[in-house]
Amino acid sequence: MTDLLDVEAMARWIQRDGVENILRGMAEYVEADYRRWQYFDKTPRVASHTPFGVIELMPTSDGELYSFKFVNGHPSNPARGFQTVTAFGALADVGNGYPIFLAEMTLLTALRTAATSAMVAKHLARPDSRVSAMIGSGSQSEFQALGLRATLGIEDLRIYDVDPQAMEKMRRNLEPLGFRIHRAASAREAVEGADIVTTCTADKALATILTDDMITPGMHLNAIGGDCPGKTELDAAILDRGPVFVEFAPQTRIEGEIQQKPEDFPVTELWEVLTGKHPGRTSTEEITIFDSVGFAINDFSGLRYARDANLGTELMGQVDLVADPEDPKDLFSLVDVLAPVS
Amino acid sequence: MTDLLDVEAMARWIQRDGVENILRGMAEYVEADYRRWQYFDKTPRVASHTPFGVIELMPTSDGELYSFKFVNGHPSNPARGFQTVTAFGALADVGNGYPIFLAEMTLLTALRTAATSAMVAKHLARPDSRVSAMIGSGSQSEFQALGLRATLGIEDLRIYDVDPQAMEKMRRNLEPLGFRIHRAASAREAVEGADIVTTCTADKALATILTDDMITPGMHLNAIGGDCPGKTELDAAILDRGPVFVEFAPQTRIEGEIQQKPEDFPVTELWEVLTGKHPGRTSTEEITIFDSVGFAINDFSGLRYARDANLGTELMGQVDLVADPEDPKDLFSLVDVLAPVS
Repeated sequence: MTDLLDVEAMARWIQRDGVENILRGMAEYVEADYRRWQYFDKTPRVASHTPFGVIELMPTSDGELYSFKFVNGHPSNPARGFQTVTAFGALADVGNGYPIFLAEMTLLTALRTAATSAMVAKHLARPDSRVSAMIGSGSQSEFQALGLRATLGIEDLRIYDVDPQAMEKMRRNLEPLGFRIHRAASAREAVEGADIVTTCTADKALATILTDDMITPGMHLNAIGGDCPGKTELDAAILDRGPVFVEFAPQTRIEGEIQQKPEDFPVTELWEVLTGKHPGRTSTEEITIFDSVGFAINDFSGLRYARDANLGTELMGQVDLVADPEDPKDLFSLVDVLAPVS
Repeated sequence: MTDLLDVEAMARWIQRDGVENILRGMAEYVEADYRRWQYFDKTPRVASHTPFGVIELMPTSDGELYSFKFVNGHPSNPARGFQTVTAFGALADVGNGYPIFLAEMTLLTALRTAATSAMVAKHLARPDSRVSAMIGSGSQSEFQALGLRATLGIEDLRIYDVDPQAMEKMRRNLEPLGFRIHRAASAREAVEGADIVTTCTADKALATILTDDMITPGMHLNAIGGDCPGKTELDAAILDRGPVFVEFAPQTRIEGEIQQKPEDFPVTELWEVLTGKHPGRTSTEEITIFDSVGFAINDFSGLRYARDANLGTELMGQVDLVADPEDPKDLFSLVDVLAPVS
């Protein structure tokens, strides 16, 4: 039997433990796994693009556990009542190859993305950061805000979205949790005076959500939404303003903001900062840029955390995905009409 | 909700409809999909190798449906009471990216492998073939035998395995179904006088299950077991005896028997035979060789067939893998502690 966290179990777990507690714990798992960078099998995700959107598989392994995520990206989905991004995935035991944990990952992706952003901001943003600007009020936005509060205590949000209803939804979800929210009339207004700027918009286009002149010294940018070929959020000039940090350079060069730059554009991988190989932020005036696209190790950490947090609890269900004949060479025994399944 | 065929449902379906009926129908699906070759996204599988074995993802899409399979290969598993190969997979709707069908695929892989072998033998073996030799009596063997009976009516089997208990298991499973079985004392003896020779052994090694001198004019070979780098079954000289047919050349050159040959070794892809671009067998004396490694389209066809055969029946279960908030931009509503899940 394979352990299972379906949508309802995942939601109940998040309600039980609380988004911020989970993000704090998951950020530690993400950081711990990035510190073990050299143990992981790393490969850019395998994408199947169509005019409607993209479906991707994101595998990785540390030699003991293997994980993969199935994830789609369909920007036109919300207009038809579907999620832009849905996902599910699994952990397997590398020793015998058996899947040991299957999980919904739409919620889990929102969690691991926010946990990663928060972990990166903790390392790269100015420690005295107090004001966060968030461009994009879609599915990821509340999780991103809670991640920054969990790690940096930030409660002042300046938000903007082209869809006023989405902004209102974000305010309605976050104000009761204690956030002070300023609904800006433009991205420019939202970014003014912010210490940390998060972009998490969904348009599949070479968009310019932020222009170079909006970015002021000392800011940290979490550019979350530009995450596939042909989809960016930042004015390319911003990428020359300060050091650019990425999860896995070969993937980010194809999918991230730096797809706008030459192939040899200098970047620093997160693990280099986390292991002390790179100093990270070097002054209060520096502009630091996290060009996030989402990498398989983030999912690995998220799955590992979700499994550890629920193992043996009543929320963990089971699904029978592994045929298990008594004699492993006798698979046929499972379907032999002369010896029916009991 | 995503439709689900778990192990028990898959086994019950196979018992209900019968292995041979399913293999006959599935062979038609495989053939139909290979005829539409140019519509498919084709990529070699994505493999994660360790000293213990391999875990692979095998995705493909025809532009309307997307499929992937998770599959392991751990040759040392049976000695520890585990299956060498286990698998599960899914179909997704390309239009919105949602998974629509999740299935166990250990049994389904045995079915689609046998359906493919049978379909290929129908096109490439001599139509008067009556005797089949099978080297390897593991999990795939009974399915392979039933596939050849379903498509070519073959009931005379000459079998050999290094494990006498596995051979006895194969005899015990197949004799009651009407097969006439000769247990050979060696691979050489098994192959003598056979019209179709199937190799389905599990050793992860550059083995030589068949030597060149065993192969006589008019034979068709289904070489099933050599399916990953460093794993072969045929003496390389056999590959010069007649035309070699493959599923997808870029993958087979890495994984198949032809990994023993130079990169420009001439092969014919199955779709070329099925669409009439290549004549297939051209004489009764010709030796035809199917260098099978298993390709994602075979899984696509298998999943499609299993889903079509069980849609709306009591065997089809459901699993909740897709978070579905009322407002697609309000994923947070599913976990909002102030608005608990009902």
